[in-house]
Amino acid sequence: MDEIITLDYGSGGLRTAGLIDSMLVPALRNEALEALGDGAVVPFSGDQLVFSTDSFVVTPWKFPGGDIGKLAVCGTVNDLCMAGGDPKYLSLSLIIEEGFALEDLRTVIDSVAKTARLAGVQVVTGDTKVVERGKGDCIYINTAGVGTLRTPGLSRSAIREGDAVLLSGSAGCHGTAVLMARGEIPCEGTLLSDCAPLRALSAAALDAGRVRILRDPTRGGVATTLNEFVEGGSLTIDLEEDAIPVDPPVAAACELLGIDPLYAACEGRMLAIVAPESADAVLAAMRAVPGGEGAARIGRVGSARPGQVVLHTALGGSRILGKLTGMQLPRIC
Amino acid sequence: MDEIITLDYGSGGLRTAGLIDSMLVPALRNEALEALGDGAVVPFSGDQLVFSTDSFVVTPWKFPGGDIGKLAVCGTVNDLCMAGGDPKYLSLSLIIEEGFALEDLRTVIDSVAKTARLAGVQVVTGDTKVVERGKGDCIYINTAGVGTLRTPGLSRSAIREGDAVLLSGSAGCHGTAVLMARGEIPCEGTLLSDCAPLRALSAAALDAGRVRILRDPTRGGVATTLNEFVEGGSLTIDLEEDAIPVDPPVAAACELLGIDPLYAACEGRMLAIVAPESADAVLAAMRAVPGGEGAARIGRVGSARPGQVVLHTALGGSRILGKLTGMQLPRIC
Repeated sequence: MDEIITLDYGSGGLRTAGLIDSMLVPALRNEALEALGDGAVVPFSGDQLVFSTDSFVVTPWKFPGGDIGKLAVCGTVNDLCMAGGDPKYLSLSLIIEEGFALEDLRTVIDSVAKTARLAGVQVVTGDTKVVERGKGDCIYINTAGVGTLRTPGLSRSAIREGDAVLLSGSAGCHGTAVLMARGEIPCEGTLLSDCAPLRALSAAALDAGRVRILRDPTRGGVATTLNEFVEGGSLTIDLEEDAIPVDPPVAAACELLGIDPLYAACEGRMLAIVAPESADAVLAAMRAVPGGEGAARIGRVGSARPGQVVLHTALGGSRILGKLTGMQLPRIC
Repeated sequence: MDEIITLDYGSGGLRTAGLIDSMLVPALRNEALEALGDGAVVPFSGDQLVFSTDSFVVTPWKFPGGDIGKLAVCGTVNDLCMAGGDPKYLSLSLIIEEGFALEDLRTVIDSVAKTARLAGVQVVTGDTKVVERGKGDCIYINTAGVGTLRTPGLSRSAIREGDAVLLSGSAGCHGTAVLMARGEIPCEGTLLSDCAPLRALSAAALDAGRVRILRDPTRGGVATTLNEFVEGGSLTIDLEEDAIPVDPPVAAACELLGIDPLYAACEGRMLAIVAPESADAVLAAMRAVPGGEGAARIGRVGSARPGQVVLHTALGGSRILGKLTGMQLPRIC
């Protein structure tokens, strides 16, 4: 380990995982935390409760297709859904930099309110802090959320050889939209973040068949999330490059930016590993939900290369997709 | 309203309340949020759940008697306890500034772990973000917490004329300790933050008699919290200045700093409004708990000046204690 925190530690890739595994989990040790899901599933009053949190530090705070308020609601709602939960309540905590315009704050809060209504959750508690100029960056938001457990047993350990790998829409829209919004590259303006609540989509998938695990590929993108499914185990994820949906504006932007869309964050996409006999039904159910029209079967679970994600090209080649190692896209969420 | 956010908006005083009342509550409107307690009490799976959150931006991150890790656990645990809850689970979300030393991060995390054990809660879910140098200040931490509801009905509306006002120990230790740690004033080093979990103290009080409401006087201190109890209503809080415990080092520091200890934050003190017939029993129960030895009856609920907090001096004078209006102590928690 280095002696100081670098931006890599916030990438959602290898460094982040290293910090979690070497420092946070050992210090705070408990069963729920060690499961390292998007949300914790814990006993509560004789029932099960799903609990999750995320802080959002995206820059710029407003981007095509959303803003930090929308993102902060979707992020936590989606974590709860991916853990098999039915989101109920959110907390909202603001760290505002001195000088942020009240009008902009109103935009963010309206966005929180609108997205919460859309996602069917109530913001029931909150906190507001203000830091001096130069000690923040416009606004940071934390949300935490609780929900009931809709579907128990979603877990890495449920994945079996032969399972299908489904993705609900184009990879990489959010990450590339935010990078374009930074003005680093001239933008044609057709590229929107996919930021959206996954409540209806995940419920449809869970109701349609045997789902092993769900995850929204945020920081580190599709490639990193799939690695988390198989790392350290005996299974492989085999992806068909041609089957992976990447919207043309995303592909074009990624080419300009020199990044791989499979490592760019999504904030409204869902990866599902599904039992083979359920794959068609779950895929059809996902496609029937607004936001899931572009869902595709992008690969299957094999065992040829234990613990790895392998991308197979149309020409018969293949390459291993590792986890994101560095800081490809800082402060994307 | 001004057109930009100033530090006053984070003071916990009038400006913070104005922002909450004029923007946040109207946008996010729901019954639990409108109660504006330290934690929300909401229905969950046929039972009641207490939910709370706080972000911590204290500077410096380490101060006599604690650090931001200890503070982040105590803050949310105490909010849950003050709402009548039994804390169960915490989330932990870090926003770390690039360049923060890993060794310091370890100190903070160890502090989180130790305080969580002490408070009897598990940290079950978390998040880590890193921001560039100059976009944060060492480390900010958000915690959210959930608990079961131990004692229902704690509320402003339960307060009655004749009730006793109890405070569990010296006012203002945390706020003055942090200010001294900033090195703005030479410090003799005997002044420690009161930062501590209030779980045992609140349980003892609730078990000993009829408690109307509990609150930990954090930002804005004892004076602001008591104002929140009576503002807009028909009751008065009459305080006896001589009865309010203020440790001599706190009094000395406040004099040096030119601040009033009644407006300086506590992070391990409890204010309780208690039915008159229960006052002695609750006070005795508080004094029997470590951290409550200095508990005192500091006043009573009257009706002479509706909606106001009045401080009566030994010489027979009196003055009205309003809410904190400005930024007396920025980034104290």
